[in-house]
Amino acid sequence: MVTFAVIGAGAVGGYYGSKLAIAGNEVHFVFRRDADLVRSQGLHVRSVDGDYAVAAPLVHESVDTLPQVDVVLVAVKSLANDEVAPTVARVVKPGGTVVLIQNGLGGEPDYAKSLGDDIEVIGGLAFLNSQRTGPNEVSHTGNGMITLATYRADYEPAGRTPRLDQVAAAFDAAGVPVTVEDDLLRARWTKLLWNIPFNSLSVVLRADTVQLMTTDASRLLVEQVMDEVLAAAEADGRALADGLKQLLLDATASMPAYATSMKVDFDNYRPIEVESIVGEPLRRGQRHGVSMPTIETIYRCLTFISAHPDQPR
Amino acid sequence: MVTFAVIGAGAVGGYYGSKLAIAGNEVHFVFRRDADLVRSQGLHVRSVDGDYAVAAPLVHESVDTLPQVDVVLVAVKSLANDEVAPTVARVVKPGGTVVLIQNGLGGEPDYAKSLGDDIEVIGGLAFLNSQRTGPNEVSHTGNGMITLATYRADYEPAGRTPRLDQVAAAFDAAGVPVTVEDDLLRARWTKLLWNIPFNSLSVVLRADTVQLMTTDASRLLVEQVMDEVLAAAEADGRALADGLKQLLLDATASMPAYATSMKVDFDNYRPIEVESIVGEPLRRGQRHGVSMPTIETIYRCLTFISAHPDQPR
Repeated sequence: MVTFAVIGAGAVGGYYGSKLAIAGNEVHFVFRRDADLVRSQGLHVRSVDGDYAVAAPLVHESVDTLPQVDVVLVAVKSLANDEVAPTVARVVKPGGTVVLIQNGLGGEPDYAKSLGDDIEVIGGLAFLNSQRTGPNEVSHTGNGMITLATYRADYEPAGRTPRLDQVAAAFDAAGVPVTVEDDLLRARWTKLLWNIPFNSLSVVLRADTVQLMTTDASRLLVEQVMDEVLAAAEADGRALADGLKQLLLDATASMPAYATSMKVDFDNYRPIEVESIVGEPLRRGQRHGVSMPTIETIYRCLTFISAHPDQPR
Repeated sequence: MVTFAVIGAGAVGGYYGSKLAIAGNEVHFVFRRDADLVRSQGLHVRSVDGDYAVAAPLVHESVDTLPQVDVVLVAVKSLANDEVAPTVARVVKPGGTVVLIQNGLGGEPDYAKSLGDDIEVIGGLAFLNSQRTGPNEVSHTGNGMITLATYRADYEPAGRTPRLDQVAAAFDAAGVPVTVEDDLLRARWTKLLWNIPFNSLSVVLRADTVQLMTTDASRLLVEQVMDEVLAAAEADGRALADGLKQLLLDATASMPAYATSMKVDFDNYRPIEVESIVGEPLRRGQRHGVSMPTIETIYRCLTFISAHPDQPR
């Protein structure tokens, strides 16, 4: 039986960890603040697919008391990588796996560098609408798919590895729709094609997806940003499929008003993931000589907003 | 004796009109809403240079009851040009003058097209810190200089005209520091070099000038916007002086925190002058083939903000 630990048991880690736990896996959770409450009252998921709860979760106050496990799921915001990455090595068994479920680009190297060569790092991309709605409650309002791909140094395509299949099988058995990819960098650029325009513009313009799609000025910005992401991905050796931009635009236009994760963080006066979602892809594109003036301008706006947490919202 | 009418007796028109009135000129004011109050209680200026009042101003409820005058000062926001411009022709005497004191670019043609060839249009650029602080009160907190230059079709340099000298002499005699320029378009681009970055970024980033100057990300945006304005002005045949950018940056850095006119409008839930201050200069530069991606992105943000007047502030 594969054993798991979840570091970052919030909207994302709490959801996937609880799915794995109720499927019968041994899953250890870290709850820094509400450990006693979660331990005594359980971890509850209010889900569009039906509510459920992990009645007696294995809860730890700190990473320090976690046992060594086969698979560490890290689902913290990228802003916490510097703090969290060095603590993971002790938790993962020799020959084990670290799955980093995170938006944006550049997180995996942060973790890989502090892990031995025998530890595999897998990147996870969650397509999940969920929010933490209480100390021991996650609200799951839509989707839930996860894409997994193994990280190799410098994001070279890693193909299918046994540990990737092992983790994917565990998610699949837990009822999580899972897709396995050969090329983590392509998967990350694909998700960035939506995440860069909608996350950044939702905060700079204090807007939801419907406002962004139905106002000419912002719709134009969304498309310009997407064109720049496509150019950067192509220069990075990951030309994305023809028609993907239009597919995402159409899908977004047909969605009800949606607040992006960056907008939710911003609205709740939490730090926003500017570097992983915007700064890192921008620098990666620019290193290839791609001109990305729209993203660069929006990146500077987000950096300003981050530097002034008293901004109105 | 030169006779004046002031259309738009707010922070700018109220200030300059009152200066001309207390210097002994016949000045007619339009106060749409508070005509009776202004007529009976006077027009008061709380000024850093000493308070004063026009005790018995000549007040009209509407442009329709204004007498014909030698000089019509128009000091409305550019957003009102479509409504105001057609009403001015009746008010100005044959051989008279219309002075348009307004930010941005593109206002003069709106007025010129509805006036006879015998009417001269003069552009006025106010360097004035003032706000309307009551129905019959203007607060003057700093500066007060005005630059005047005659408009000619398509903004060709018009040189010094007798009517330009006449208006300048009236301002000078009223104690207003006045500069006369040969080339209105150069004067407008010069002012835009400050107005475009600081007005637009102050609204998009909800910031004052100190925040914009002391945060790296916004300081970089200010400079990029200035570089694009300089390129547009040069392509428009108005290369601005070497060192002007640095001069404006230094001057702004030495100022106390200052809310731009666009920010004051935004904060007071009034429409903002996006087209005259940003859109028109952008289109003028782009017609000359100048790449202005930073300004274009910020312009789209401002257009979005204008379309959503419920934006937080």
